[in-house]
Parts: sequence; C-alpha cells; structure tokens
Amino acid sequence: MQATLNSFLDENKRFIQQELYNALNQIDIPQNLKESMLYSIEAGGKKLRPILLIASFDTYGDDKRNIIAPAIALEMIHTYSLIHDDLPAMDDDDIRRGKPTNHIVFDEATAILAGDALLTYSFELLATDSYLTDKQKVFLIRELSKASGPRGMVAGQLLDMEAENKKVALEQLERIHALKTGELIKFAIKSGAYIGNATEKQLEHLDQFAYYLGLIFQVQDDILDVTGNQEVIGKPVGSDEDNNKSTYPKLLGNQGAVEQKEKYVQLAKKALHNANATDSYLMMLTDYFSTRNH
Amino acid sequence: MQATLNSFLDENKRFIQQELYNALNQIDIPQNLKESMLYSIEAGGKKLRPILLIASFDTYGDDKRNIIAPAIALEMIHTYSLIHDDLPAMDDDDIRRGKPTNHIVFDEATAILAGDALLTYSFELLATDSYLTDKQKVFLIRELSKASGPRGMVAGQLLDMEAENKKVALEQLERIHALKTGELIKFAIKSGAYIGNATEKQLEHLDQFAYYLGLIFQVQDDILDVTGNQEVIGKPVGSDEDNNKSTYPKLLGNQGAVEQKEKYVQLAKKALHNANATDSYLMMLTDYFSTRNH
Repeated sequence: MQATLNSFLDENKRFIQQELYNALNQIDIPQNLKESMLYSIEAGGKKLRPILLIASFDTYGDDKRNIIAPAIALEMIHTYSLIHDDLPAMDDDDIRRGKPTNHIVFDEATAILAGDALLTYSFELLATDSYLTDKQKVFLIRELSKASGPRGMVAGQLLDMEAENKKVALEQLERIHALKTGELIKFAIKSGAYIGNATEKQLEHLDQFAYYLGLIFQVQDDILDVTGNQEVIGKPVGSDEDNNKSTYPKLLGNQGAVEQKEKYVQLAKKALHNANATDSYLMMLTDYFSTRNH
Repeated sequence: MQATLNSFLDENKRFIQQELYNALNQIDIPQNLKESMLYSIEAGGKKLRPILLIASFDTYGDDKRNIIAPAIALEMIHTYSLIHDDLPAMDDDDIRRGKPTNHIVFDEATAILAGDALLTYSFELLATDSYLTDKQKVFLIRELSKASGPRGMVAGQLLDMEAENKKVALEQLERIHALKTGELIKFAIKSGAYIGNATEKQLEHLDQFAYYLGLIFQVQDDILDVTGNQEVIGKPVGSDEDNNKSTYPKLLGNQGAVEQKEKYVQLAKKALHNANATDSYLMMLTDYFSTRNH
C-alpha cells in the first residue's frame, strides 16, 4: 500500500508541476514578474493540496482533464499566501523549503506583485478553462474565493498574527488553523468530489473529513517543529517557540498532542466511511498526513 | 448638461458607497481586517470606475440590479491596488486623497492582508450574486481577472516601477498606462455594455473608446500634477517629478500634452459615435475626464 501511495504522490506531483509551468509559461507576463511567480511555484513543495483534490476526485470520478484547472488554481493560491506570509512586514522569513524566500531573491515590491498576480490569475484560469461548464466554474470560483478570502485563509493569517505572544485556548487555536490551512484543504476535498459527481450526502461527510484532516496536518506540523529533523523538514526546528506561537505541544504537552492527533485520525476515518470512501487514496493520505516526517 | 452629469455622478457615487458598505459590513470578518478594508473603501475617491460601468450599462440596458455586483467588485479591485501600491516597498505614499494611507493608519501587515482580502472578495461577490446568470458571472470574472492580473494592472504596476528614473518613449508610456489604469477602465465600459446587452459590434467600438478614455484620464492626471492645485487634487503637486516618473508633460511639454489629450478626445468621441452612443453619459464623461481639475 505504501508503494501504491508513493507512486500516486510522485506521479501527481510531477503532473501538477508540469501543468503549473505550462499555465504560467505560455502567457505574456513581464519577464521579472514571471520569473518571480515561477520561482515560488517551482521552489519544491509537496503539492499536497492539489494532490488531495485529485485524490478526492479519483474516489468518485474519472475524466482527469476536468480537475487540471482547479488543481493548479489551488496551488497558485497556496503559493501566493506563502509569498505574502514570508514578507518582512508579516512573518519575516528568509528561508522556505530550504531556499531563500521570494522577496530575498527578487525584492519586496516584486514579491507583493507576484503574490497578487498568482491570486488573480488563479481565478482567470478557472474562468477560462475549456473543460469545465459555466456551472462548475461558478461553483469552483465561489468556493475558492470563500476559502481563501476575508472569511477564510486571510482571516486565519490575521488572527494568527494577533495571537502571537499570547496564550490562546485550544478552541481558538483550532479556529485559527481551520481558517489558515483548513479552508484550502476543505476546498481541495470538496471540489475534487464535486467535479467527480459525488452526491450531496457524500459531500457533507467529506466536509467533516476535510475539517479533521486539516487539524491532523496542523498538529503534525507543530509536533515536527518540536521533534523534527531540520534537514528533513527544510526549516529551522523550534521556530514556533522563537515566534512565541501557540502550538498543540505547548498547550497539551508532546504526548497530549500525539493523543489529540490520534483522536482526529479516528474522526477523519469515520467521516470517510460515511462518505463511502474507505477504499481510496484519501484513506491512505490520512495516515500519511499523521505520520509524515517533513 | 453639466447639471445632468453632476446629479448622475452624485447619485451614483452615493449608491456605490452604500452598496460597498453593505457588501462588506454584512459578513463575518475579523474586526481589524474589516476596519482596514472599510477604511480604504470609504476614504473618499470619486468612484469613477464603477460610475463608468453604470454609464456604459445605462447606454444600452435598464435593470440596474444586474450591475451592482460588477460595479462594487471593480471598486474593490481598484481599492486593493491603491493599498498595495502605497506600501513602503512599492510607491511608499503616506497620503492618499488627503488622508493617511492604509498602512499608516493600521500597519503594513494588515494593509497587505486588507488588499488581498478585497481582491479575493471581489471574485466571491461576482460568483455569489443573485441576479446574474452563470454565463454572465463567468464573463465578468474572466474579464476582471484578465484586466487586473499579471497581463493587466499588475503588469502595469511592475513596468511603472521599472520605468522610474528612466526616460521612456511615448509608446512605452502609453503601454504602461494602458495596463496600469486602462485595463480596469476597459473592463468598466465593456462589462457595463455587455450586461446591458450591447451587440458584438458595439462592444468592439466601446473597446476602442475605453482605450482612449484611459489615456485621456492619464494625460489629465499628469497635467494636474504639474499645474494643479494641491488642495483640490488631495496630493502633493510635483510628486511625479520627485519620483522621476515619465509623464506626458515631460515627454511632450505642457502644451504638447494638452494637444495630445485633445487628439485622444476626438478619437474617443469617434468611437462612441460608431457604438451608437453619442447620446449618453459616456459622451459627457469624456469631456468631464479631459477637463477635471482633481
């Protein structure tokens, strides 16, 4: 099973990288802006969000051409958010995935514009795709803009910054993560299944699944920041501590964080069962997310 | 005629301000983010882009409910671009329309996020509107994302920064303005007429009209920066000179700039004639744009 998942991950990572490159390279963008956009798009990363979208689609549907635009639009939104989050005025990070961040390689102004451009272009891609119907396009644009906008990811980033140097309760920590990373994961799961023609009922259970999967992802991220190997995870271990961030290990202790994660894994799998999706890559990805070491 | 135009401008400015406020105020956004978004939305401004959209719609159509979402989405995109352009890493402006800029009142991080939020929410508004059909939504989202993205406004901002401290030819200056301000003006004219059910032929002529209108707007902006009254225009006179920007007066002399503007006015009016739109607010707005003193 591990071999099956690994080849699914490798194959789709390459597929998404190629489609991202094609989408950006073919259009007429000022040279410096294009290079800055491509730099962050190509700077490694596991492409987990579009892979989740494909895995969710694969559980119900079969014509893969329909999910190219949503998958790469999603990765563009994720990439823009990393570029802006790394800016000096935000988290002020010089290194991301073991490489200098966008504003270090280019400059701040170009990094801001590259983020704006990726964000805007993701909607253009969805609106101009040749395979999706107008109804599907409107669904995807609505869900993606909600997930990433002022009631979604952007709200999460603001609340996360406001929570620095403060002790926050578990409930508030979950709210921040649900907004900051969970909303895009929900979009991936929901829109993949929607394009694959899942039923309304299945979509509801997948929404639950996606919620827990997002939390699993985050708890593991926090755990790795305490116990991980810097060379493997590609960023300094202990950076959450340095930034005075609220984390699961800090709130619950290391052992408590692991137990909380196990609780989420059980709830995620139960939701998958209800969505008739136990025999799927989503099931394998749940274990993968909870045990990953980078 | 001046009285007619003035009441059209006043009435629609109030209408748009109210609709913008309603759209933002009714949704659940973290307090600080909402205040930052509303601050720049409400910080004066003539709402010229949405007014152009309404004027273009009014030339051909009549059910005004259809153009609320496009008009306010357009103003949100324009506002986001001002917030990001004013940032220290970009144009570093402390004052805009006579008031402190967003990052001065809030902070840089909040200003970046408020811009991101307005940009993203503009697409959500279009995708969730109750009056537009899916076909119209896809048209509007496609045109708005093209106009404001890496082949439109964002490209213009990048090229504009690159052109600072350089002498550029008239052709390059026109290209920068066409991207930086012209694309959104084109969107306003084109999508207003499209929602009003203008013919394909009329839309083509309006595209020409919008191109010249954008240039008229820009030449007059440059002229006002040299000859204008600081109290009336709400920003320091001579700031282009200070920033070493290429302008029409610098390239053509003051008299040459005025003559160039007159040439554009004639071409704009000819295009309106071809679009059966001589008896319209668009005609009055052409003169208004070329003679405005702020």
